[in-house]
Amino acid sequence: MQLRTDLALEQKEMLEEDRRTPEGVESDEIQMGQVRVTRIRVRNEAGERALGRKQGTYVTVEVPPFTDDAGLDENALAAVRRELAALLPEEGTVLVAGLGNTRITPDALGPKAAGRVLATRHIAGEVARAAGLGNLRPVAVLAPGVLGQTGIETAEILAGSVERIRPAAVVVVDALASRRLARLGCTVQISDTGIAPGAGVGNRRQEISRDTLGVPVVSMGVPTVVDAGTLAWDLLGGRSPEDAELTNPRGAGMIVTPREIDLLIDRAAQLVAQAINCALQPGLDSETLLSLTED
Amino acid sequence: MQLRTDLALEQKEMLEEDRRTPEGVESDEIQMGQVRVTRIRVRNEAGERALGRKQGTYVTVEVPPFTDDAGLDENALAAVRRELAALLPEEGTVLVAGLGNTRITPDALGPKAAGRVLATRHIAGEVARAAGLGNLRPVAVLAPGVLGQTGIETAEILAGSVERIRPAAVVVVDALASRRLARLGCTVQISDTGIAPGAGVGNRRQEISRDTLGVPVVSMGVPTVVDAGTLAWDLLGGRSPEDAELTNPRGAGMIVTPREIDLLIDRAAQLVAQAINCALQPGLDSETLLSLTED
Amino acid sequence: MQLRTDLALEQKEMLEEDRRTPEGVESDEIQMGQVRVTRIRVRNEAGERALGRKQGTYVTVEVPPFTDDAGLDENALAAVRRELAALLPEEGTVLVAGLGNTRITPDALGPKAAGRVLATRHIAGEVARAAGLGNLRPVAVLAPGVLGQTGIETAEILAGSVERIRPAAVVVVDALASRRLARLGCTVQISDTGIAPGAGVGNRRQEISRDTLGVPVVSMGVPTVVDAGTLAWDLLGGRSPEDAELTNPRGAGMIVTPREIDLLIDRAAQLVAQAINCALQPGLDSETLLSLTED
Amino acid sequence: MQLRTDLALEQKEMLEEDRRTPEGVESDEIQMGQVRVTRIRVRNEAGERALGRKQGTYVTVEVPPFTDDAGLDENALAAVRRELAALLPEEGTVLVAGLGNTRITPDALGPKAAGRVLATRHIAGEVARAAGLGNLRPVAVLAPGVLGQTGIETAEILAGSVERIRPAAVVVVDALASRRLARLGCTVQISDTGIAPGAGVGNRRQEISRDTLGVPVVSMGVPTVVDAGTLAWDLLGGRSPEDAELTNPRGAGMIVTPREIDLLIDRAAQLVAQAINCALQPGLDSETLLSLTED
Repeated sequence: MQLRTDLALEQKEMLEEDRRTPEGVESDEIQMGQVRVTRIRVRNEAGERALGRKQGTYVTVEVPPFTDDAGLDENALAAVRRELAALLPEEGTVLVAGLGNTRITPDALGPKAAGRVLATRHIAGEVARAAGLGNLRPVAVLAPGVLGQTGIETAEILAGSVERIRPAAVVVVDALASRRLARLGCTVQISDTGIAPGAGVGNRRQEISRDTLGVPVVSMGVPTVVDAGTLAWDLLGGRSPEDAELTNPRGAGMIVTPREIDLLIDRAAQLVAQAINCALQPGLDSETLLSLTED
Repeated sequence: MQLRTDLALEQKEMLEEDRRTPEGVESDEIQMGQVRVTRIRVRNEAGERALGRKQGTYVTVEVPPFTDDAGLDENALAAVRRELAALLPEEGTVLVAGLGNTRITPDALGPKAAGRVLATRHIAGEVARAAGLGNLRPVAVLAPGVLGQTGIETAEILAGSVERIRPAAVVVVDALASRRLARLGCTVQISDTGIAPGAGVGNRRQEISRDTLGVPVVSMGVPTVVDAGTLAWDLLGGRSPEDAELTNPRGAGMIVTPREIDLLIDRAAQLVAQAINCALQPGLDSETLLSLTED
Repeated sequence: MQLRTDLALEQKEMLEEDRRTPEGVESDEIQMGQVRVTRIRVRNEAGERALGRKQGTYVTVEVPPFTDDAGLDENALAAVRRELAALLPEEGTVLVAGLGNTRITPDALGPKAAGRVLATRHIAGEVARAAGLGNLRPVAVLAPGVLGQTGIETAEILAGSVERIRPAAVVVVDALASRRLARLGCTVQISDTGIAPGAGVGNRRQEISRDTLGVPVVSMGVPTVVDAGTLAWDLLGGRSPEDAELTNPRGAGMIVTPREIDLLIDRAAQLVAQAINCALQPGLDSETLLSLTED
Repeated sequence: MQLRTDLALEQKEMLEEDRRTPEGVESDEIQMGQVRVTRIRVRNEAGERALGRKQGTYVTVEVPPFTDDAGLDENALAAVRRELAALLPEEGTVLVAGLGNTRITPDALGPKAAGRVLATRHIAGEVARAAGLGNLRPVAVLAPGVLGQTGIETAEILAGSVERIRPAAVVVVDALASRRLARLGCTVQISDTGIAPGAGVGNRRQEISRDTLGVPVVSMGVPTVVDAGTLAWDLLGGRSPEDAELTNPRGAGMIVTPREIDLLIDRAAQLVAQAINCALQPGLDSETLLSLTED
């Protein structure tokens, strides 16, 4: 039985439950009001083995629940924006890709966020200045769909576009699975290692990273589900459930999610998209960006 | 801790687990190919106390999973149609009401099904005959919304329309919670007792029944979620989880559902709506009804 | 050939084109920045005959195009709110009904707006005070659907609910046809005469007014289409087009609309809903109301 | 004033109105029941100049109105399938791309159709045979979005994917403008010349053709709108409207469309997608294909 989590923070917690000190893994934590930022750095191969994660930086931003209040939390937005900006190059075109399946609500975060990111690559320069938008950073946006609908690996589609538009970096947005119900709807993970095979609610099959795309890849994810088998294992203190239900093929697709998952996805998409917009267009204020990208 | 189920079949199973023979409760079961129909009749007050359910008939139709195959299963359709027809008066206007919230995917069954039921009350008679549709039974259709969006109890809205159009019967469609994951997406419950307070994914607040509406009320429901607390209790063999998560206010809204809940809801709505259409318009064949109500 | 318009303002313009002075019709006009408010009052039967409209007040608010800029125009909101409030009683429950068909984009204004109106009837009083919302005016909200889908006249459904909840007034929201393309997407009409038969994009069949519901009915409408036959007539200076296309049954359903009709509907629904929210809950500020009703 | 049409058939009609015989343009016409197929072939540069169209084949299939009846018309499907198959290579991977904007109803045909095309490239071969699907032709499917949302020309995105997956041909689906209202909702155009700049409801900016992608490109389009300016010109017998409305920037985006445009788009997407599925997977029957691609 594999405990399913896409959060490096939870993998580190698991190690610590077992009193193993993960070598080659460093972390620091900052609390600002209701927002907590935890940065985990996997420094070397020992750290990779310990955490089961590629070398790189994994930032978890814990924020007030997205669904508590309709307004975008300014502190949450500021923190996500800052951590994202810190992992991106300061200049050059950025390609933002929203991964996931619009027909599966808990997997729709990526395409929903992509729909709210301001695409500027076609209007940067003269046009934007003429429209009073100042100097816009060139941004391209894709929602490439999922393998079952396209017949093409997401990594392949992105590689094709990267070759064409030669961005300085790629940002991929994806819905994640966490181990803890308490993390649903109040957590954003940002990493400079991209997407590993098997990650995301949709279990993307191929790695999407600097290794496969040839440019820096920053991933942003929000946990939207807990795998039902993982919940059962945790409840049973590390045993598999006797009930065959959760382990048979039909049970395997069972997820735990808040009843208001539709609202959670909308709010999370808004936060992630707006953080991307603010990080990439520092010359525009938050309100202008919201009005330009309203869904 | 209350085990949450809207299925009379599961309440009967719970009693039987405890080796108590429920008095005043009768049941029979028919298997036809891959379809199993279980009819439970609560005969008297002893049965009401034992099962915690009003006197009346509760039919469970277990069918092949809705999401296995895209085509509407003809045997499943025939069984649901027949059991529904058996609980309805043979003549007179029928008001079909789809309960639930279109913005919460697992609660959207009712409105989605209502959208596919053929409304004929305004064209019955001359017009229908002129259009070559023969004698149509008058059918009215409502999707009244949920209390949080309307500020009006669903029972009140229905009572207002019942007074106006004086139907011979009301059919209400609602998404249900079951106790077992294995029942999600392959079960339809039909009952002549209407909707009890607290039932449905949305926990409707007021009873919707012959007592409150003054005409026979038949409910049709499909389990779309298992309450996460109920799953935990079952996994732990009847203990509450130590982990506070599942019992605190935020955990309270957690549900277990198939990852492809959107598809499950679509297919379930199609089956329920088509069974209603076929039961109410026996003069039209299934294909014509599908083409007239395509979403 | 009947020129199709739901705007009293345009009917008055037509009279004036013909140099007929409409007797029994008064009007005044106020310009405030980019917002122009025209109030037409039909005073007596002569005015009714002249304008082809029931006695009452018809207010047209002309505002900057909804689709020009994403933000809600504060002056437009203030004007619509004020004109609406002036036609409503100061106290008592209000029932807001969004008329139209969610499956026909240019007819979806009513249901879309209804989805953004804050329903409070079920939480007014103690609950609202406990939630720090102060004294909320009781508001109920319905999106009753259209005759073709429900088999029940909208007027009947509303009458049933009015009998039950006894509101002090009803507000109905509907998409309208105008005569002029220039009015699409930048006009709101508010009237205390309700909805006349044949009005709206969906050509509602029955009157919805104080006469039929027994309480004051204020209608709010936004023109979203121009009838293609009306456009042709105008272009041809008052002749019917020779081309049979526009006059045959298939052409009869042809409408002229902006390409970005989906965006127009969204923005119009937001403006109308927010104006209703502000008019009915003067104790809450605009931002709080937006966050409580975000779609 | 340019009369706006994306239909080669209408361009030919215009020439014939002027009694000019288009040189280098050949055509034949077949009527089969209610379905009429017109094949226009532009043979040489003279034909290109005359018709204002690239050399190649333009097939128009006129069918009973999509919105008349819910069922897919079998004759219409057979004709579109056959004409499409005749323009495609018999073997090799096919990339299907649905062009257009999902947020603009009359432009959403392409993405909607793409959502119903069976993607098989990832399961062709062993997997498909194991699932009893026999030999599937490899098909990939993209809905690349529009320039305003992606910042990348559609032609660029497609070129990137074509380089990666090296298809034998590309099929692009797009919503078109016609000159005649009578053609909306009952016409499919199929061409082996791809998409010309400025074509489609969305006025795609770059050519998408064998010249730009390096492989054969077959376009399939359905007229969903008539440009309001074109309608006016026609009504006025070739004069521009005096009314400034239709010629000013705001009027320029005005379109004429059936009121039930949402239904038209759904039905057209279903017909086009199913014709593609049948043409590409001749080993599967129509019903199986429908059940595998149900939206």
